[in-house]
Amino acid sequence: MMRTTVTSLTQKMVVAWRKEFKRCMSSIVTRATGGPRTAAIIDGKSIAEEIRLGIASEVRRMKEYTGRVPGLAVILVGQRRDSETYVRNKMKACEETGINSSLVELPDDCKEDEVINALSHFNEDPSVNGVLVQLPLPEHLDEEKILNVVSLEKDVDGFHPESMGNLAMRGREPLFISCTPKGCIELLIRSGVTITGKKAVVIGRSNIVGLPTSLLLQRHHATVSIVHALTKNPEQLTSEADIVVTAAGVPNLVRGYWLKPGAVVVDVGTCPVEDPTAELGYRLVGDVCFEEAVRVASAVTPVPGGVGPMTIAMLLSNTLDSAKRAYEFT
Amino acid sequence: MMRTTVTSLTQKMVVAWRKEFKRCMSSIVTRATGGPRTAAIIDGKSIAEEIRLGIASEVRRMKEYTGRVPGLAVILVGQRRDSETYVRNKMKACEETGINSSLVELPDDCKEDEVINALSHFNEDPSVNGVLVQLPLPEHLDEEKILNVVSLEKDVDGFHPESMGNLAMRGREPLFISCTPKGCIELLIRSGVTITGKKAVVIGRSNIVGLPTSLLLQRHHATVSIVHALTKNPEQLTSEADIVVTAAGVPNLVRGYWLKPGAVVVDVGTCPVEDPTAELGYRLVGDVCFEEAVRVASAVTPVPGGVGPMTIAMLLSNTLDSAKRAYEFT
Repeated sequence: MMRTTVTSLTQKMVVAWRKEFKRCMSSIVTRATGGPRTAAIIDGKSIAEEIRLGIASEVRRMKEYTGRVPGLAVILVGQRRDSETYVRNKMKACEETGINSSLVELPDDCKEDEVINALSHFNEDPSVNGVLVQLPLPEHLDEEKILNVVSLEKDVDGFHPESMGNLAMRGREPLFISCTPKGCIELLIRSGVTITGKKAVVIGRSNIVGLPTSLLLQRHHATVSIVHALTKNPEQLTSEADIVVTAAGVPNLVRGYWLKPGAVVVDVGTCPVEDPTAELGYRLVGDVCFEEAVRVASAVTPVPGGVGPMTIAMLLSNTLDSAKRAYEFT
Repeated sequence: MMRTTVTSLTQKMVVAWRKEFKRCMSSIVTRATGGPRTAAIIDGKSIAEEIRLGIASEVRRMKEYTGRVPGLAVILVGQRRDSETYVRNKMKACEETGINSSLVELPDDCKEDEVINALSHFNEDPSVNGVLVQLPLPEHLDEEKILNVVSLEKDVDGFHPESMGNLAMRGREPLFISCTPKGCIELLIRSGVTITGKKAVVIGRSNIVGLPTSLLLQRHHATVSIVHALTKNPEQLTSEADIVVTAAGVPNLVRGYWLKPGAVVVDVGTCPVEDPTAELGYRLVGDVCFEEAVRVASAVTPVPGGVGPMTIAMLLSNTLDSAKRAYEFT
């Protein structure tokens, strides 16, 4: 009896304390950023995992029926730490899904011909369905010339100008859509976001992310505006958008007041910033001021764990699609 | 003496009448549309004429130094009245500037192979520097397949997906920029309009005009938004733009209240509408409600006499550029 009373009292105190804490926090939060946290966090990691499981199962089915598996070839020039990490992750993801992968590593001072020869070799190899050159290339190499050599049928990165043109033009079907933009749209679709007729703002206009993302959103019938370094009052245009995809590479560029209440925000930015409390001495930060965005937007992708994992999932998906076309397997 | 007095009286009357007429018109105008006419009319006809004179002089110089002139080849399939008129105007413009032109006319029911053979023939012919297929093609022909055959080095219409991709991608230089978009930008530049950092809205997203115009404006560092049939409240986005290029093909779509005061408006729309008072029983109307626009905008292109003449001038310019590259003539 005694015990029950004590428990009951403790429970009452806990409830009261919780209420007070909530009230207090909510008042602090309201004062600081104008509202409580409302946004759903789009879990790119688990969506990507789901996609990868699906790919692994398709690859097994392909092996069973055709005796073959998809093949991805990667060319890495030089020893950039970030590029090495990206390539390692791609190879690992291939392995986990049953996709064959080949890597050619060339020294930082290699000649253009060496890169082109390696590319041509993979273009010819029927066991290779996707070929990619890890970017950026060292300064002395002509990126345009090299990317133009990638066979259209194996251009799983979608960086060939003809792939880009086919993405831009209505009535055309590009064989491949660049992995990060495709990942962004996939996140939106799988989160139940309608794109057609919505106002979308893309921040950044790089060939790798901003440009193809704007073309892809337009393909999905959004009304697209592209914000870049020379845009005056970028916050004004951004604050009218239902969907914001940002790929500027500027930490905390997009503040809460840049966003329309209820907007969906996809953050492609990934900048390492120093953080002595982090295990590696740095942490990854997106373009979006996350703490503010979650109080204004209806859904936000985190960094890390948002778009990042989707990029590799889409690379695997493009490689699988290419193999299906090559092996005539559906 | 007598004569002087009469003249002086007449002059006084004329001045008084002019004042009254101005006052009266201005009051009517103010009541009807909210303001007097303020916009400069961008005279595409005379700008195009100036460009054509320059091209003719370059062609003469080329002939003098190389013994050769540029050559344009046109393939026309079927007997669409409008296409026939466009092609006739292109051939005539070539003749006037000293450019050689060849025309292959194929019947409406011709086979795909016939079009492709004609194209391949021109691709090979060193006296031909520009090849174009007049669009639209009859339904039974695969436009994509046919346009992809046009040699990139002779794609003076800029409709090959690789030309479009190179137009879209930063750091790339397309060999040719589609004629109408190039004409629009040329009109802006020659009218002293700054594009960098300005907000631009493109209405329409066709492969021929809207898409390449948006890409080209972005190349000139405008902040571009693309409005299309599925855009909600297109007037709201349009009314924020410093530059509006409209290519929707919907007569009088863009009303005065769609425009920001002082905006520059380029009207690519050309729709024939019935008009019993016109010589041919119809007149050409743009997308813009001209009478309203001239009272809000700072500059407007008329229809006809705005973008239309520029398209052909840019085709001649692209053909000349191509010949310069082929003959290594600067």
